[in-house]
Amino acid sequence: MGNKVSIGLLGLGVVGSGVIKLIENHQEKLVHQLGTDVQVKSVLVRNIDKQRDVDVDRTFLTTNPDDVLNDPEIDIVIEVMGGIEEARKHILNAFANKKHVVTANKDLVALHGPELQEAARKNKCDFYYEASVAGGIPILRGITDGLSSDRIRKVMGIVNGTTNYILTKMDKEGLSYDVALKQAQELGFAEADPTSDVEGLDAARKMAILARLAFSMNVDLDDVEVTGISDITLEDMNYADQLGYTMKLIGFANFDDRKLEVNVQPTMLAKNHPLASVNDEYNAVYVYGDAVGETMFYGPGAGSLPTATAITSDVVSVIKNMLLGVTGSQYLDPHFNKQLKTEEQRFGQYYVRLHVKDEVGVFSRISALFNELNISFKRILQNPIIKHEKAEIIVVTHKTSLDNFYAALNRLENLDAVIETKSYYKVEGDANQ
Amino acid sequence: MGNKVSIGLLGLGVVGSGVIKLIENHQEKLVHQLGTDVQVKSVLVRNIDKQRDVDVDRTFLTTNPDDVLNDPEIDIVIEVMGGIEEARKHILNAFANKKHVVTANKDLVALHGPELQEAARKNKCDFYYEASVAGGIPILRGITDGLSSDRIRKVMGIVNGTTNYILTKMDKEGLSYDVALKQAQELGFAEADPTSDVEGLDAARKMAILARLAFSMNVDLDDVEVTGISDITLEDMNYADQLGYTMKLIGFANFDDRKLEVNVQPTMLAKNHPLASVNDEYNAVYVYGDAVGETMFYGPGAGSLPTATAITSDVVSVIKNMLLGVTGSQYLDPHFNKQLKTEEQRFGQYYVRLHVKDEVGVFSRISALFNELNISFKRILQNPIIKHEKAEIIVVTHKTSLDNFYAALNRLENLDAVIETKSYYKVEGDANQ
Repeated sequence: MGNKVSIGLLGLGVVGSGVIKLIENHQEKLVHQLGTDVQVKSVLVRNIDKQRDVDVDRTFLTTNPDDVLNDPEIDIVIEVMGGIEEARKHILNAFANKKHVVTANKDLVALHGPELQEAARKNKCDFYYEASVAGGIPILRGITDGLSSDRIRKVMGIVNGTTNYILTKMDKEGLSYDVALKQAQELGFAEADPTSDVEGLDAARKMAILARLAFSMNVDLDDVEVTGISDITLEDMNYADQLGYTMKLIGFANFDDRKLEVNVQPTMLAKNHPLASVNDEYNAVYVYGDAVGETMFYGPGAGSLPTATAITSDVVSVIKNMLLGVTGSQYLDPHFNKQLKTEEQRFGQYYVRLHVKDEVGVFSRISALFNELNISFKRILQNPIIKHEKAEIIVVTHKTSLDNFYAALNRLENLDAVIETKSYYKVEGDANQ
Repeated sequence: MGNKVSIGLLGLGVVGSGVIKLIENHQEKLVHQLGTDVQVKSVLVRNIDKQRDVDVDRTFLTTNPDDVLNDPEIDIVIEVMGGIEEARKHILNAFANKKHVVTANKDLVALHGPELQEAARKNKCDFYYEASVAGGIPILRGITDGLSSDRIRKVMGIVNGTTNYILTKMDKEGLSYDVALKQAQELGFAEADPTSDVEGLDAARKMAILARLAFSMNVDLDDVEVTGISDITLEDMNYADQLGYTMKLIGFANFDDRKLEVNVQPTMLAKNHPLASVNDEYNAVYVYGDAVGETMFYGPGAGSLPTATAITSDVVSVIKNMLLGVTGSQYLDPHFNKQLKTEEQRFGQYYVRLHVKDEVGVFSRISALFNELNISFKRILQNPIIKHEKAEIIVVTHKTSLDNFYAALNRLENLDAVIETKSYYKVEGDANQ
């Protein structure tokens, strides 16, 4: 590689432009850190003539992937084109040509991470994807390096900025879900078709990647159970507040007895939980390790510059590995075979809101039902809804198994006194009030 | 080194015992990560016969430093004995004998870090000290690896658990400083002689280390200006709360125009600042980078297991470097020559609480005084103190230079209407209320 490292880019959207700017602006620091020049040599684009907000020599632009993937001078390929199949093909191609790859493509890494990792290893190439989870937060490094000697038990993440923005607006300003979503769309925090964000799919991708690294196993995207935020009502948010909780979309991954649980679901989080004060479009990942206890990494989850920073930091790591001659060894083979927890093995506290007939003895019947299943209550609220001659009952349970909780929901449905189960949510932490 | 790495310990207090337990408990994971056994071979102690809460073969214990520092089989020395001079001598000795060193000794690293780093580099040895700052939080890695491609502008830290515990108790429970300190001492969060914590010296050590790595320059402990928490009153805490701030002991380091400012001082932090909800004995470090924007690393700042985790993670990094044959290159030479900011170059918002004569025109005279210095007000509170025929005035200024602010304080003292300047504090962030 001589005293120059050459980089090829696949894609030149906002993130790609950000990477080019960062590398240009930091030449001095990069040279100091690495003792070598770092230059972008060619960039794959769809349309060479398109107007761009970054100053790139047009002779660097190409519409032919081979100009990036087959150029023997190019050492590192940065994939910022997005999409799945084409990106996958190009990356596999890059590895076959002994090029290292850095990507921000969470969809691709979530779906095909293990395959790409394997191809990298075979070709002694580096494959880094810090930017794919929580943009500017160096969480993958935190897990693989910083906590390498700990046994991680639990990872909880607010890993989708769009949903966190919407929930913050609902919570702090009392906006309805629809109004908050519309506002997020107007501000560019949510896309015209917000499905992937609001239904939790984007968060699920990040949790699959996090769980893989935290627990050293091949977690598939399908292993992640997902519930989105589109059914959350202001009523439940207000009750959460009253009970000392905040509603957040939480990615949850837990590993014990060599068994794994990964899911994404709206969760009532005790207000004293470190994640509870992560607001607006910010992301944070909370990690619980046997030895270290509670840690949290907080920062911007998206944005072209934070993402470009994560990519450039990965590029710096790759160059260091190249200089040291140790590429292809940064992530380890999965250590554990994946085994998912059954519903009997998953435990949680739950919030349930019921509409019941407003008559004598209703609460004691409901209470007996939970009792029979050995589920005890932590909090109870009961309010009459006079206009409709019914009452609203809210309970927060102590810890119970998920199958047990589902059994309770089932029996509630068959109880004559229960008009409707309005909602139920998982609860995390102990509220102080 | 064969397929076994041997470790020598200097010291066997709670942290040393924790390291031994962690290495034993994680043999399986360590072997998987590193492909090599990791064994503690000998431990320097003062008294071999002392009762200990960790199961160590007594034949491993020694009172002769040479058994650790001169044993050719020992690859890595972990220094957890504390103190300055003896630890420094042993570590220099270890480097001279080509042993890598991991330490948790913030006092030593703050005072002699550059010298030790230089000795390590000369001998191609690794020198890691993640545990010296914010215990279990992998913040040094976050700065040197995760944000390596960014230009860090500002580091703010709650890096002392004792003072954060005391301030949290004062703030949330209305305890006075003395009562909160006593409680912290009873719970073991504060030492019998709490000077080093409450006067900010411990935090200053950590800020010197952080500033060195964040800004790539040799920062000395003497460069850190320090004010402790022992003069904080409940009155000022209550006013802070009323104005939308929380009082925290903040380590502040800022670098622009190649000029540095580092200090530790009680600061009124806007409640919406990520650091404002870091409570009890927890630590957090907030980093602002040009590209990434705001990030924060949160976790336990002390405790034997979190500290032992950081040490063991460092040991894992050293072993990886050994396996790759690249020890001695982890931290870089300082890039910038140190240049400290003058008071004219340091800017901040300030809170001032005055007792003034309760007579007509006082406020307008004070206001004119600030006006002449071009300092404008962001918030003003005025309350009569009827019993004593005086009034209390609180102002929060907009941003101004420190020399300008000091000039204002000086002039206030000479103003006839001002009875006393009760207190003043730096203010960070914009309160919402």
